[in-house]
Amino acid sequence: MSILTANPAPTATTSAGKLYRLGRIFGADGRTVVLPVDHGTMLGRVQGLEDPASLLEAFLPLGCDGFLLGPGLAARTAPSFASRNAPARLLTIDTYWRGEHSGEHVLMTSLAHAAALGVDAVKVLMPWDVPAEERAARSKLIGEVIVAAEPFGLPVMVEPICLAAPRPEHATQIEADGARMAAELGADIIKIMPPRDPSLLSDWTRELGVPIVILGGPAAGTAEELLEMVQDAIAAGASGITIGRRVWQRPLEQATELLSRLAEIVHPERSA
Amino acid sequence: MSILTANPAPTATTSAGKLYRLGRIFGADGRTVVLPVDHGTMLGRVQGLEDPASLLEAFLPLGCDGFLLGPGLAARTAPSFASRNAPARLLTIDTYWRGEHSGEHVLMTSLAHAAALGVDAVKVLMPWDVPAEERAARSKLIGEVIVAAEPFGLPVMVEPICLAAPRPEHATQIEADGARMAAELGADIIKIMPPRDPSLLSDWTRELGVPIVILGGPAAGTAEELLEMVQDAIAAGASGITIGRRVWQRPLEQATELLSRLAEIVHPERSA
Amino acid sequence: MSILTANPAPTATTSAGKLYRLGRIFGADGRTVVLPVDHGTMLGRVQGLEDPASLLEAFLPLGCDGFLLGPGLAARTAPSFASRNAPARLLTIDTYWRGEHSGEHVLMTSLAHAAALGVDAVKVLMPWDVPAEERAARSKLIGEVIVAAEPFGLPVMVEPICLAAPRPEHATQIEADGARMAAELGADIIKIMPPRDPSLLSDWTRELGVPIVILGGPAAGTAEELLEMVQDAIAAGASGITIGRRVWQRPLEQATELLSRLAEIVHPERSA
Amino acid sequence: MSILTANPAPTATTSAGKLYRLGRIFGADGRTVVLPVDHGTMLGRVQGLEDPASLLEAFLPLGCDGFLLGPGLAARTAPSFASRNAPARLLTIDTYWRGEHSGEHVLMTSLAHAAALGVDAVKVLMPWDVPAEERAARSKLIGEVIVAAEPFGLPVMVEPICLAAPRPEHATQIEADGARMAAELGADIIKIMPPRDPSLLSDWTRELGVPIVILGGPAAGTAEELLEMVQDAIAAGASGITIGRRVWQRPLEQATELLSRLAEIVHPERSA
Amino acid sequence: MSILTANPAPTATTSAGKLYRLGRIFGADGRTVVLPVDHGTMLGRVQGLEDPASLLEAFLPLGCDGFLLGPGLAARTAPSFASRNAPARLLTIDTYWRGEHSGEHVLMTSLAHAAALGVDAVKVLMPWDVPAEERAARSKLIGEVIVAAEPFGLPVMVEPICLAAPRPEHATQIEADGARMAAELGADIIKIMPPRDPSLLSDWTRELGVPIVILGGPAAGTAEELLEMVQDAIAAGASGITIGRRVWQRPLEQATELLSRLAEIVHPERSA
Repeated sequence: MSILTANPAPTATTSAGKLYRLGRIFGADGRTVVLPVDHGTMLGRVQGLEDPASLLEAFLPLGCDGFLLGPGLAARTAPSFASRNAPARLLTIDTYWRGEHSGEHVLMTSLAHAAALGVDAVKVLMPWDVPAEERAARSKLIGEVIVAAEPFGLPVMVEPICLAAPRPEHATQIEADGARMAAELGADIIKIMPPRDPSLLSDWTRELGVPIVILGGPAAGTAEELLEMVQDAIAAGASGITIGRRVWQRPLEQATELLSRLAEIVHPERSA
Repeated sequence: MSILTANPAPTATTSAGKLYRLGRIFGADGRTVVLPVDHGTMLGRVQGLEDPASLLEAFLPLGCDGFLLGPGLAARTAPSFASRNAPARLLTIDTYWRGEHSGEHVLMTSLAHAAALGVDAVKVLMPWDVPAEERAARSKLIGEVIVAAEPFGLPVMVEPICLAAPRPEHATQIEADGARMAAELGADIIKIMPPRDPSLLSDWTRELGVPIVILGGPAAGTAEELLEMVQDAIAAGASGITIGRRVWQRPLEQATELLSRLAEIVHPERSA
Repeated sequence: MSILTANPAPTATTSAGKLYRLGRIFGADGRTVVLPVDHGTMLGRVQGLEDPASLLEAFLPLGCDGFLLGPGLAARTAPSFASRNAPARLLTIDTYWRGEHSGEHVLMTSLAHAAALGVDAVKVLMPWDVPAEERAARSKLIGEVIVAAEPFGLPVMVEPICLAAPRPEHATQIEADGARMAAELGADIIKIMPPRDPSLLSDWTRELGVPIVILGGPAAGTAEELLEMVQDAIAAGASGITIGRRVWQRPLEQATELLSRLAEIVHPERSA
Repeated sequence: MSILTANPAPTATTSAGKLYRLGRIFGADGRTVVLPVDHGTMLGRVQGLEDPASLLEAFLPLGCDGFLLGPGLAARTAPSFASRNAPARLLTIDTYWRGEHSGEHVLMTSLAHAAALGVDAVKVLMPWDVPAEERAARSKLIGEVIVAAEPFGLPVMVEPICLAAPRPEHATQIEADGARMAAELGADIIKIMPPRDPSLLSDWTRELGVPIVILGGPAAGTAEELLEMVQDAIAAGASGITIGRRVWQRPLEQATELLSRLAEIVHPERSA
Repeated sequence: MSILTANPAPTATTSAGKLYRLGRIFGADGRTVVLPVDHGTMLGRVQGLEDPASLLEAFLPLGCDGFLLGPGLAARTAPSFASRNAPARLLTIDTYWRGEHSGEHVLMTSLAHAAALGVDAVKVLMPWDVPAEERAARSKLIGEVIVAAEPFGLPVMVEPICLAAPRPEHATQIEADGARMAAELGADIIKIMPPRDPSLLSDWTRELGVPIVILGGPAAGTAEELLEMVQDAIAAGASGITIGRRVWQRPLEQATELLSRLAEIVHPERSA
């Protein structure tokens, strides 16, 4: 069952270009395993991702559905994706920096550049544990990106998130409101931290009308805990995962094995 | 009596496109029942509206004149409106966030996008219990929307409102001033909280020269109180209602029944 | 069965705006009865259509799915369509003039103007019994209209036709080639003269992948012949009719009766 | 080792976007089997291609590297290409019509539309058995397409050809000159009729510095003759084939078998 | 061997124009000696560089690979570079001013002006020991410069740097993160202070996938210390140097001698 047949309503409102690209991100079962390697666009020289091009090359043969990466890496690694069997590419086009009193959210490349690179989607952050004024600015920027991406046929992935550490008390509620706002703005894919209570994720996947992929966050917990979290999320209706640090901040052999088991959970039909 | 004969002045100054769309919003009696389901654009995952697409589907057969909704929902539910008998759609294009000291008011989509979706009007908020500087900014933004909507033939609904809780002492006076400013700016429809004194609403409908629709605000009071409020407003010359939470924050059966009774009050000729 | 379920592939590649408007033109059965009253844009003061606004008013209550009309008439008659039950409007945006040696094909209004008027589609002629150089010019103009209509969410109806009188020997073959070219260019609806052999029309409806509506041409033949022609066309898979002169170049009472019978053939479920 | 000598010339002059897309058209062996189904954009309802979408569906599972098709078909068949294993799509964006005295060459869609659809290249004809004035016009149009395609990262396939029937005496010489002009203009891929003398093709592939794919032309000759022609062309350095009518103007079973044998010749490593 | 594998990565993703210009900056060994004389754009009348045109004339015959200079000097000294054997020119297009609480980073000329001058690259600063809000602003500006430089075929050199004096405690870490961000944004060349630990520089040159040139900073230390630093950097994989004050803030004869020895270290093959 593809994303087309799996989601009758959305495709009815999807242009030919978006439909083509969404079909490259989500497999025939309407699900996706995306490996994010874009952390340098906000976190600098992250442990385990010091050399993103090499890490990308190491994971390319493992059969991910897509990679999430920044514009510099996308340009430099274009040759690795220049074949019909290659994974999809989702381009992180923004960067966010939180100061003592406020945060600044900016685009670091253009939608025209994303289109020229031939990526299959663009991705923007939506920090939502922010003061009211910032929520307005975030909504405006994301709304503009969604409108501007339309004539390029580029789907937009939006990530509503609480960035404060430790996580604020009502983080899940804040992210639920952010996810709703992302859907109201017209996001094509929503990337979100799975709530502790899977029934809540189940509600979101039913209510938002947009494919939801879950994120992993900083490396924490055991591999078994991660696998269980993903199992629960898929059971609750999530359309896939974009988990990076909890995968590649391990020795390569372990990471490879883990990614393979995650893919089995997301795509049970493929491994059957 | 159509919106044309009912509202002689406006149509004389209305382009063919605006006139066409206003006629789709207001019935042959010049009145309208609009169900707002756009709350997620400011309030997140509102109780009772967690799944706006399903709620919209449930209310579609009940004969509303229109729905007020955000851009993401408008795109996703386009198939449900793709018939000649479908209700009108009014698109909420802005979002407003009030911080401790000031508020930010931004557009979350473009008028071109609204036109492409085929909606019949756009709607913007006009928070008016704000400092002078903000009143200037609000006036500027709304004035710009009105000018920009003109070549698209899109009517603009403006909602002057006091957002502070509890309501400020002179809230009605502030909203009356806001309504006047909205009319001065060129609003095509004004959405406003009905004043306690119906004679005041009567003055407004006579003075402003623009159709006025009343809002409901947060769920409060009994169904009978709501019906009475609407009855008074219609008697005072209001052109209709846009009441959401006080309708759909009830069990579906009660909500359905209530909407039906509201429609009878607004459109007595239809039910006759 | 709606145009959505009736035509799975096309809607999958249709933007929200086009999908909304196509759903207003084609009924729940995927079929349409469009009454063309745009002849003045090429033929001047046509017999029977001397007063197009009055004729339009006379036919409005009869339940056509849509009217095909020029920009002046669309603006003037906007009040008649300013209600939710009104038929769709398809706007003729071009005019064609054939001289002794060549023809000139021009747009007489803009797509932005069409969007502002709130029409549900635009329509262009595609004279195809023309020299090679003209075919190039026609293809260019129609291709440009299709690309330009996209961001407005406006469907484009294209009419491949032989305009020479008497009809050239291989007129049907020429129109079949024109229809194919219209589909290759990306037309959303094709308006065409039904071939004498219904199996040929059946081939076209299957091959072109685009809804086909048949035209009537100059008044000729009896009402029974017309009804039979439409019956055959619908049986062959046509999605509807746009027949004008053969309807309204009769006394009004006869025309009314004829239109009613045509609608029964196109929409058997409605009259059942 | 300098940045120059370290990186051989040809791709060194290719942007990341072009390189990505070329890699989707040409396989790991640098070769491609493209099935053209775009004939309706010039020839109308061609025998064997009356229903291009169905033919495309029938050939999709056979493992072509790409399809050459027009904009209408590309939009309608987008769902069939919406997966990562799907063949590439090359979009025919022009149409050419030759009159008694001169020919007209026009674009039928825009490069922005091509980019939005997500195709991997655009293709233009280059009729070269034309008077000097037309050669100037052809050069101008193709030069403009090449420049305009650059910021979209879209490779441009150019097809220098003699369109007169019967072929002019020095057709091969004219096409060789056209191919050279195409290379001078900056074509990324050249599509050409293979000359009778394979050593000439060998010269071209060596001299032009651009991948050459050979065309098939109208159905003629036996399957064996076609296979031999392709065998010779590949041996002479051709990078692939775009042969349509000589394949699909046969019964489907024969066509399937023939395409499979052609693919074996072009990609011997795959079938090994 | 595919078109991809045949053409190694880095230049494979570089447009023809960038490749041409990069080849003029970096020698046949992929290394460069750039003499910066652009200090007036931030530091005013710097000691030793009071008369930049004369200094430039004095160093021109010494065989630098390039000069880094501001727009005024580039225009005035154009005649000195108007021959094929002249060094490359890299144009500093921005200026940065740090106030008590924040800094302002602006462009002082346009990319079109840079292209008109015929320079081989543009150069921007990336102050990274700045508050979060400024990092956002820096990222936005540099991202825009990189996107805007693309259609001009102009390589962009980015210089991540800590500007505070004395250098902050974790200056090297901050600059490493900045370098990574520069690479993520798509910088073509990174200019950076060499870390005390050469193995760290070795990591960077391997990880970032972009040529790194080291800067010299304010005049300090002996000539021997400078030579050792450069020797270590080249051994660690640096692609060259852009060292000014530590060279020309000496008597001309010493400076000449020093520059000559630096060039021997960077280009050992040339002097062999």
